[in-house]
Amino acid sequence: MKKKTNTRPVFFVSDRTGITAENLGHALLTQFGTIKFEHHSLPFIDSSAKAQLAADTINKVAQTSQYKPLVFCTLIDNSYRKIINHTQSHIIDFFDAFIKPLETELGTPSSHAEGLSHGISNEGVYMSRMDAVNYALKNDDGISTKEYIDADVILIGVSRSGKTPTCLYLAMQFGLRAANYPLTEADMINGFLPKILQPYRDRIFGLIINAPRLHTIRESRRQHSQYASMQQCQKETRLINLLLEQENINSLDSSHISVEEIATSIIQLMKINRPSIY
Amino acid sequence: MKKKTNTRPVFFVSDRTGITAENLGHALLTQFGTIKFEHHSLPFIDSSAKAQLAADTINKVAQTSQYKPLVFCTLIDNSYRKIINHTQSHIIDFFDAFIKPLETELGTPSSHAEGLSHGISNEGVYMSRMDAVNYALKNDDGISTKEYIDADVILIGVSRSGKTPTCLYLAMQFGLRAANYPLTEADMINGFLPKILQPYRDRIFGLIINAPRLHTIRESRRQHSQYASMQQCQKETRLINLLLEQENINSLDSSHISVEEIATSIIQLMKINRPSIY
Repeated sequence: MKKKTNTRPVFFVSDRTGITAENLGHALLTQFGTIKFEHHSLPFIDSSAKAQLAADTINKVAQTSQYKPLVFCTLIDNSYRKIINHTQSHIIDFFDAFIKPLETELGTPSSHAEGLSHGISNEGVYMSRMDAVNYALKNDDGISTKEYIDADVILIGVSRSGKTPTCLYLAMQFGLRAANYPLTEADMINGFLPKILQPYRDRIFGLIINAPRLHTIRESRRQHSQYASMQQCQKETRLINLLLEQENINSLDSSHISVEEIATSIIQLMKINRPSIY
Repeated sequence: MKKKTNTRPVFFVSDRTGITAENLGHALLTQFGTIKFEHHSLPFIDSSAKAQLAADTINKVAQTSQYKPLVFCTLIDNSYRKIINHTQSHIIDFFDAFIKPLETELGTPSSHAEGLSHGISNEGVYMSRMDAVNYALKNDDGISTKEYIDADVILIGVSRSGKTPTCLYLAMQFGLRAANYPLTEADMINGFLPKILQPYRDRIFGLIINAPRLHTIRESRRQHSQYASMQQCQKETRLINLLLEQENINSLDSSHISVEEIATSIIQLMKINRPSIY
């Protein structure tokens, strides 16, 4: 007999992308750090036949593992859910847990319509998110400053302080127009904002990074370069800290936090009005 | 007396970014399309004082609305949760609903540690996501093909078929290396893949778009141009469909689906092994 695996299988079953199910499941599973999980995604389960196939997959994996699979389920259709509920698994049913109480509180039945999340439920909202992504690309790394007047936020920082991924995330997740401008040693030497940025100072936000972290990141890009040297990193980080203080600009240390945390913090610190997502 | 508002206030309360709470809440609220919601984010609630401030905010809004606020809560700390639970609101408590049953099933207590989701819980995983974002930027729009050997997927399609946002999303959400190459009329006229792409055909995926949709998108960028004309859009979409068929390349119609749906479908159709997120 084949030896059974000792990781815990986890399934994410959804009628659409499964991204909500995965974020939800991931947040929960990080609370159980000692257990090894093995991830399976089953998106687009939107027919009885597909639900049956998904159920077969879950049962097959259940046979090969020492542990009962966990199934994070965000199916909306009752008949598909029933098929999944009959598998040899522990089900964490997202809609089952929350939709009923919400129906009671809101005094109205839910629509039980699939695909309203992470789809194009509102064309205008979706297009403005995509426009924001294009905006971030066109206004990345100081390549153009002509559209700064339309920016919700303009990030400044030294090279490799995390500006670009943060702008892209602000655009993709929140539909915000985020530009960024890299500050070189020459830009910072006199301690003031470059002239080109001065008209927009109410929207400018500084990303700080500590020298050892900057050194590590730059080394992984251009090993043993002057650009990546600890001395250069120390010089630039010192200069930007002085400039931000002198100019009294909102800022955040990005050294040890994720792009999601940086983006959310910027929105909070700059009191940016997020576009409606409904 | 001031008239009360007739929208339903919704709060997203989290000890970290609140992004999971918002995705979760958004998925649920889209099931109640007839109700108008008003969105409030309260991220980084990581002390009793902040929890008390959040509770005060919720209670203040509750006074001004006809409806009891909904509170989507992903706080992990029990004492902060208690503070929020005492507000005049309907609480949808994410951890309360799922953590207890998971502890039982997994046979181990949860760590009750904050900030393990959407933070840098695993440095290596996080850095490889950021590397993937850099990869997408460096290999966008055919600007370079030198690193195609490292690609998980290479998207091809006509200009404005959604390649760039899809690549960025594949990188940011899933840590996948996604390049893209735009096909012009000249590239497609003989019906074969451009030579430069031929060595990578096992990783190539086509994004299709219908002519009216392409026309609308291009018009919003370059109004009344030859590039945006319906005739040009019809010509290019016909050519790419022929090429994809002739070359037998996997593809997907992106006309009416979101970047999240496109990305998830590509992973499924190409059977791409996603890097572990744990």
